[in-house]
Amino acid sequence: MSVIVQKYGGTSVGDPSRILNVARRVVATQEAGHKVVVVVSAMSGVTDNLIKLAREVCGDLPPPEREMDMLLATGEQTTIALTAMAIQSLGHQAVSLTGAQAGIVTDGVHTKAKIRDITPARVHQFLDAGNIVVVAGFQGETDDGQTTTLGRGGSDLTAIAIAAAIKADLCQIFTDVEGVFTCDPRVVKTARKMNELSYDEMLEMASSGSKVMQSRSVEFAKKFGVPFEVRSSFNNNPGTIVKEETMSMEQVVIRGVSIERNQAKVTIFQVADTPGIASRVFKAIADAGIAVDMIVQNVSLQGTTDISFTLNKDELPKAQKVLEPLAEGLGKGITAQDGIAKLSVVGIGMRSHSGVAAKVFEALSQGNINIQMISTSEIKIAVVLEETRVAEAANLVHEAFGLSAV
Amino acid sequence: MSVIVQKYGGTSVGDPSRILNVARRVVATQEAGHKVVVVVSAMSGVTDNLIKLAREVCGDLPPPEREMDMLLATGEQTTIALTAMAIQSLGHQAVSLTGAQAGIVTDGVHTKAKIRDITPARVHQFLDAGNIVVVAGFQGETDDGQTTTLGRGGSDLTAIAIAAAIKADLCQIFTDVEGVFTCDPRVVKTARKMNELSYDEMLEMASSGSKVMQSRSVEFAKKFGVPFEVRSSFNNNPGTIVKEETMSMEQVVIRGVSIERNQAKVTIFQVADTPGIASRVFKAIADAGIAVDMIVQNVSLQGTTDISFTLNKDELPKAQKVLEPLAEGLGKGITAQDGIAKLSVVGIGMRSHSGVAAKVFEALSQGNINIQMISTSEIKIAVVLEETRVAEAANLVHEAFGLSAV
Repeated sequence: MSVIVQKYGGTSVGDPSRILNVARRVVATQEAGHKVVVVVSAMSGVTDNLIKLAREVCGDLPPPEREMDMLLATGEQTTIALTAMAIQSLGHQAVSLTGAQAGIVTDGVHTKAKIRDITPARVHQFLDAGNIVVVAGFQGETDDGQTTTLGRGGSDLTAIAIAAAIKADLCQIFTDVEGVFTCDPRVVKTARKMNELSYDEMLEMASSGSKVMQSRSVEFAKKFGVPFEVRSSFNNNPGTIVKEETMSMEQVVIRGVSIERNQAKVTIFQVADTPGIASRVFKAIADAGIAVDMIVQNVSLQGTTDISFTLNKDELPKAQKVLEPLAEGLGKGITAQDGIAKLSVVGIGMRSHSGVAAKVFEALSQGNINIQMISTSEIKIAVVLEETRVAEAANLVHEAFGLSAV
Repeated sequence: MSVIVQKYGGTSVGDPSRILNVARRVVATQEAGHKVVVVVSAMSGVTDNLIKLAREVCGDLPPPEREMDMLLATGEQTTIALTAMAIQSLGHQAVSLTGAQAGIVTDGVHTKAKIRDITPARVHQFLDAGNIVVVAGFQGETDDGQTTTLGRGGSDLTAIAIAAAIKADLCQIFTDVEGVFTCDPRVVKTARKMNELSYDEMLEMASSGSKVMQSRSVEFAKKFGVPFEVRSSFNNNPGTIVKEETMSMEQVVIRGVSIERNQAKVTIFQVADTPGIASRVFKAIADAGIAVDMIVQNVSLQGTTDISFTLNKDELPKAQKVLEPLAEGLGKGITAQDGIAKLSVVGIGMRSHSGVAAKVFEALSQGNINIQMISTSEIKIAVVLEETRVAEAANLVHEAFGLSAV
């Protein structure tokens, strides 16, 4: 008998009939001979309604974060109760547990708490008594009993953390996509669902625009060695397994291509090539709460260098406002440009295969697509392109590496 | 500096603007120099919506009670978060606590748990740090961490129990009425709001149709000597204080008149006057979950007696069904009649004043109103009348005892 953790997101539990569908799936898993823990999110729309109520109460002030956590935690609590009821209505034993009751202990950073520890005694106890255990995603409690929430992607994190704590054999993340694809199927028609990939590849895909899961859930899974499967809650097709890399994974040079639109780039020209310049720039940006993606600095030429970075287009005005007062002391000028996109090619196989970068550049040049910036990591090559060309670029690269479905 | 517990019901916190009104009232109380604990119910309508969701999930089966508690507890949790936010938006410190976090420990009888203990360490700690503490009414947690709810009137009970545990100086129950009246003002136009009455009088009024509060909250307050005030959340008028009886209370012979419509009576004629007959009747009734109100049996005449009891009209068909199979072995026949009402005259002063009953009967006879049944307790005289005459009767008795506003 293996132990399986299943996680269902807000769309999958969006109304009573969908909750009953989830219950049927969970019951089928138990009937196949497994112990099952189910982690659920708030029903879609519920969280938005709660936020609206909070805004109405708080007027122009931002809602206090401690109370926001207390408020939002009701969303998942509603779903666990309804899901446990649905399972019972199918004639199976089930109990619901809030994050706190399931033993999820977090730090005290409200609205984006980090999991510190899990003491899953109660989960074990109810599982051993023959129950399907339904746990509220996204929430926990501090050591001294304050309700907290885990921030975006928190329910995935709950599922993976519980799976780690109870040493589950598998953690299934049910979602509204079929799995992880070699590229966004809306962009590349021949994109193929991958059967498996490594944690690192998943991380690079996630940070490159394949928004199936938040990076931190994948990082947590990697840290504790929890294999998980991303699959659809609307059918029974197998999804994509994400796990430790294996020898066979390295045979595949390139796992997938991901693209991220709505990017902008900022370049500071002829910056004095002395220590402390980059830190001044990026400290100012970070202090303003702006997330920077790629940073590129080339070798110094005659004592000055150019620094470029990319960021989300929406953040560009804020970034410009921060940098303007700094500009005079920095370099010869600042340019900012939106209308660009990032294309990333990911695969652990590229560590042991040479010529991957060349093949990417060649594919793009065949399409006469200009590369504006290049940045590489051990298992990723990212290039910045004109946004209007990115779909074409993705298809060319996808084709060049033979990623399409056979 | 005194400590005050204030309780606001579902109507008082029915939407964000009403929650802000409550927040203003609470803040004003703190600014008047008091420490304040606020107990709130679910926003009106929320509980009904949750019950509807549960029914949709459970189909024809009754929703499991453990999960119902988990579900319903979200209603009050939503309100405490919004109320704490509203108080903070007015520039005052506030924290919300669920029933469990406030230390309310209950037995494990889901959907109608009883409070076993309160460990209000956290309430004290947050109060001492200058916060207004907002506690979820209606809910608690068992010793082993299961979420429970307290059933009907549970938020009043929470308020009084917290007031007892933290030794509050006063507990204010804010509601949609102005206080406790000498009679229902819709029936007796000259009815007067009482300034104070004793726990026992409040209990008799409550059990006689003055449904301001559930009896068990009043009993709890009496047991732990918690004075409380029933008052309106829509204005600043003083309400009615309910407390230990005092010497001056006894000067008032009659405190008030309460009426209860929609009653029915059942009489079993010529029952053999032997031990065990009454127990057979009322055990059968109790086993069917039917609540009986007055029971009257007169002295035995020639070895047989008549037993009558009243009950809610809606329960009459069920009672008849239960008694029919018993009837033959019991007496000469059973009659059942609805269209009756109960009128009760309540006052601790009647213990030391004679002639109260005579005065009630005289008032009714002046109106030519027939008395069908009579039952008395130490501080109450209750009579059963034709329902169509009860308003007239209430006015006559109210007038006879000089209860009207001066």
